[in-house]
Amino acid sequence: MVNKIYILRLSNYLAALKKLSNMGFVKVFSENLADAVGVTASQVRKDFSLFNISGQKKGGYQVEALISSINTILGKDKVNEVILIGVGHIGTALMHYKGFEKEGIKIVAAFDTHVLELKRQDDVPAFTMDKLAAFIKQNNIKTAIIAVPESAAQTVMEELLACGIKGVLNFAPVRLRVPEDIVVNNVDLRQELDNVLYFVNAMGKNKR
Amino acid sequence: MVNKIYILRLSNYLAALKKLSNMGFVKVFSENLADAVGVTASQVRKDFSLFNISGQKKGGYQVEALISSINTILGKDKVNEVILIGVGHIGTALMHYKGFEKEGIKIVAAFDTHVLELKRQDDVPAFTMDKLAAFIKQNNIKTAIIAVPESAAQTVMEELLACGIKGVLNFAPVRLRVPEDIVVNNVDLRQELDNVLYFVNAMGKNKR
Repeated sequence: MVNKIYILRLSNYLAALKKLSNMGFVKVFSENLADAVGVTASQVRKDFSLFNISGQKKGGYQVEALISSINTILGKDKVNEVILIGVGHIGTALMHYKGFEKEGIKIVAAFDTHVLELKRQDDVPAFTMDKLAAFIKQNNIKTAIIAVPESAAQTVMEELLACGIKGVLNFAPVRLRVPEDIVVNNVDLRQELDNVLYFVNAMGKNKR
Repeated sequence: MVNKIYILRLSNYLAALKKLSNMGFVKVFSENLADAVGVTASQVRKDFSLFNISGQKKGGYQVEALISSINTILGKDKVNEVILIGVGHIGTALMHYKGFEKEGIKIVAAFDTHVLELKRQDDVPAFTMDKLAAFIKQNNIKTAIIAVPESAAQTVMEELLACGIKGVLNFAPVRLRVPEDIVVNNVDLRQELDNVLYFVNAMGKNKR
């Protein structure tokens, strides 16, 4: 079973490989990647074998081929289509966020309960929630962004699970209950700002 | 010198203390907190002594007094005033974000280069950038949110530093260069969504 730890390591290998590629490396050994990422060489080989990436016997891996394989595994070789649930202020900001498109991420549709909210949007087609299940099925969507109020978030999550959604980026300040094979990444804006405030406040109280 | 690791531990002690308080604890020993947070008891005592929190000899700490002391150190005993730079879509979403107010965080003013942008806002007074320095000084502001485009972020950061800002929550997808005693917390929305997509993609390619 693939879990988040594998994905994080793959993502770290990819970052290291891109640096090595820029430095002119053509071949790389599991020991090199192990050093760069801070794991053992046997861990590197185990991770690659899990995803059917094979090296040459005693010859290591071709850097460019390895980058291409990991890109494919992580889905960076294609446009990733996601849907957005909740067209309030945060949802609207995400629909206009330039950073997604640059990285091959496209919000293909937005959903909300209020038709009124939906009228404001131009670029991304917006629908009421009763269209959600059919849209996900027809477009084979696997990833959603939840930007609804805290009180609605778990209900929305359960609707998404029933439609086959596998991954969620959640902006509602609540821990969503999901099965083990579903990934939820929480962005808690209050917590992020609190962390800054704690530091500023504590520093002001202790000048040592 | 206080650093981020101390603050994170204080924040963890606080969370543990609140749970203990709910369970009816009146007193707590450094050993209890060490177990709850996963550090050594001497680390707990060292952290508290750094902030002049003292216990009774061999008697431990009073839970409620300790909660109150840490709240004060972290600034949770007062309203925390922050300013916002950049009134685009993300800035607007932050100005309307309900989660801040609930936790005693108030965005007291917003700044942008475009007067056009500023007209849209109601609740938070908005100013052009030439008013920034005077506002920060008059209101003794120490914390700012940067929600400007990537290309403007470092320039804005330097203006904020010159005005005495000590902590920043940064939404621009760029690493800001700051002195060591300044805290910057980055929220990279693309990276957060990428992490979800990686998982969903990799899982789809490996069903083991």
